[in-house]
Order: sequence, then structure tokens, then C-alpha cells
Amino acid sequence: MYLGRVIGKVWATVKNDSLRGQRLLIVQPLTPELAPAGKTVICADCSGAGAGETIYWCKGKEASFPFLPALVPSDNTVVGIVDLLHVKR
Amino acid sequence: MYLGRVIGKVWATVKNDSLRGQRLLIVQPLTPELAPAGKTVICADCSGAGAGETIYWCKGKEASFPFLPALVPSDNTVVGIVDLLHVKR
Amino acid sequence: MYLGRVIGKVWATVKNDSLRGQRLLIVQPLTPELAPAGKTVICADCSGAGAGETIYWCKGKEASFPFLPALVPSDNTVVGIVDLLHVKR
Amino acid sequence: MYLGRVIGKVWATVKNDSLRGQRLLIVQPLTPELAPAGKTVICADCSGAGAGETIYWCKGKEASFPFLPALVPSDNTVVGIVDLLHVKR
Amino acid sequence: MYLGRVIGKVWATVKNDSLRGQRLLIVQPLTPELAPAGKTVICADCSGAGAGETIYWCKGKEASFPFLPALVPSDNTVVGIVDLLHVKR
Repeated sequence: MYLGRVIGKVWATVKNDSLRGQRLLIVQPLTPELAPAGKTVICADCSGAGAGETIYWCKGKEASFPFLPALVPSDNTVVGIVDLLHVKR
Repeated sequence: MYLGRVIGKVWATVKNDSLRGQRLLIVQPLTPELAPAGKTVICADCSGAGAGETIYWCKGKEASFPFLPALVPSDNTVVGIVDLLHVKR
Repeated sequence: MYLGRVIGKVWATVKNDSLRGQRLLIVQPLTPELAPAGKTVICADCSGAGAGETIYWCKGKEASFPFLPALVPSDNTVVGIVDLLHVKR
Repeated sequence: MYLGRVIGKVWATVKNDSLRGQRLLIVQPLTPELAPAGKTVICADCSGAGAGETIYWCKGKEASFPFLPALVPSDNTVVGIVDLLHVKR
Repeated sequence: MYLGRVIGKVWATVKNDSLRGQRLLIVQPLTPELAPAGKTVICADCSGAGAGETIYWCKGKEASFPFLPALVPSDNTVVGIVDLLHVKR
């Protein structure tokens, strides 16, 4: 999984039927020190995260597991909201 | 999912049978501010998007979900057309 | 999918049984303007493409779909030969 | 798989149900010479690794295999603790 | 698939059960001209390749096919040893 911050939303009327009703968040990846790191991605959401929150998201086929048995074509899904993190390099 | 703009099309006569009848779009990835970002990709389409439209596409195994039960060898599929997006960094 | 040009072949005697009889092509990724872009990959082939031809290939799990029901460990497969492409940036 | 070192942990109360009870480790990728190499990732753990240990982790769909039959949305999982490695370039 | 050379081995006592008995090789990716290209990866092996040999390996879900029906959490697997390659740019 990867750390990120929710920085925006996307609205789309024309879309694949299995994405109907899914919120689409714009996520900025972060370092463990919470600095921006790399290109933004669009994530489906299964955590209820809102603008400005620190979250972690999941890439790839596993990103569609939270929506099973529906086969949602999501390759990036927010799966949790971060309370606290501890790093010692 | 990733933001992009449709900038072209590909025609191919010789191809895997399961790709017959699929439109192939050339997509330029975009930042949330709609600036070009990175290398173009070729996407199958399930949204009806046309040249110049802002879309979002899906990578990986999930990119083949919109075509189920057919097992289409597509690793990048346009899954929606963007109406509006809001970003606050 | 991604644009590329066939620039070579690989011969291997010792290999996984499910790759027996598969042609292995060396492919140079291309931009839509057909300039080289990035590192070469080795692709299985299901299109019959030959040296110098412009093709598009598919990455990931989907790259094994053309060989079903055989479970071929191919993560990059040439799936079509390009006739024509049109780009307008 | 990839070499890395455990450098921290993440706590999250709100998360996908299938991640309940999983430890989440912050991992710094390493070269074979054990120098840091690239961006950190968050890994689920099935090895019991602790802070400072050298581990190897697995990316992608395969990262969810250790949790089967549960379909855990993990795209990065620590699968082993390194005892020794030998490199000759 | 990708070209590489075997440059080392990893030993690990504590690991996921499904990796028990698998050899773990450190692989340096190569260009078609056999120059080093990019970061090393750790690969499971199903070819019997030894130190110094030129091999090609497979990434992603497909990397676990050679071990079926066992669900081995391997995301990189050496699938063949290169005898000869021919490149013409």
C-alpha cells in the first residue's frame, strides 16, 4: 500500500456501469515524512475519506477486492485512513 | 485510475481475435491541472470518448473487467469521460 | 497497450515447459511519433510480427489471455500489427 | 521479490474490514549492497518482521496469496526475513 | 519478459510457507546489448540458472504460473536461460 493525501474529486457522467455510485478521489502520494512524492492518481474509495485526510491506498488487482462480488474496474482504491505513523530511518 | 486526454487512434488489421471490433485510442496522461505528464499509452475504450476529450482510464487486470465474460487482452481501458474536477493542494 | 517495434529475437533451450514453441521477440517501445522511448522488453507473440514491424503489445496478466486455456507465464505479448496511426496533440 | 528494511509502522482505525488485524510496516527498498533505493512502501506482513530487519517483499496480486482464502487487498506483503545474501557483480 | 544476469543468492529461514524450497536469485536487468539497466530484483527460479548466466524472467501474476497448482507468492520468476540473441536496431 502507499501513503497519500486526498486533494480533490472527479465527477463523470459517462462511465463504465460498474463504477456508478463510486466516489473518485484525487490522491497525492506522500513520503513517510508526509512530503509530496510523485504523480497524483485517481482512486475509488471504500473508507469514506475526505479532502485533506492522510490515507493509504492499494494498487492493482487487489484494489478491486473491497468491491467483490462486483467486478469494479478500479486499479487504485483508498483502503484506510491513517491515525498515526512512526518512522525511524 | 489516471487522468488523460484522447490524442489519436490506431488501426490494426492483424490482431488477436479478442480485440476485433475494439476501438484503440492514443491517450496522453495529464496532471490534475490538465498538463501533459509522462508517456502516451494505447487504451481500449468502453466509454465512447472522442479526440480531445478528458477521460480517466484504468490499468492492469481490472482494465479487462468491462469486457467480461470476454477475456480481452487489454491492459489499459478508458472507463469514463470527465465532466468536472476539483483540486485543492 | 503500448506501441513498439520488433528489433530482435531470443533463443532459449532451457525454459519453462509452458513457453515451449513460443517465439520471443525483443521490442523497442515507441512514442506515437515512432521515436524510441524507454527500455526494451521481451514479448511472446501471437500476431506473427517480424523484424522491423510496428506493433502494439500488452503487459501484465492480460498478456496471458491469448494463450488460454494454457497458463503461459508471459507478462508481455505482441497482440497486433499497426497499419496506421493518427495523432493530433 | 524486492529487498528492503523495516523502518516504521502505520496505525489506522478506519480501514477495509479485510485488513483488520494486519500489521502495516513502512519498508525502505534496498540495493543488494543494502543501500536505500527508491521510495518507501507500506507492506502487510506475514513474517513477523520487526523494526530494522532486512526483509524481502512481494508486489502485486501474488502479495495477497499468503492470506488466502481471505481476499485481503494487499499489494505489498513482507514474505521473508533475510539471513544472508551473496552478490558478485 | 525481461533480460537479466544472475549476480547472487538470498538465504532466508523465516519465510512464507509456500516459498519453502524455492531458490531465490538476485538478478541484474540487462539491455539487449547485455549492459546493466536499472535496479536488481529477487527472482524465484524454475530454470536451474546459476551465477553469471544470462536469463529472462517474468513479472507479475504470471510469475506464479510455473508453480501451479501451488499458489507461490512470487512476483518475479526466472523462466528461461538465454542461448543466443540477435538484435538489429
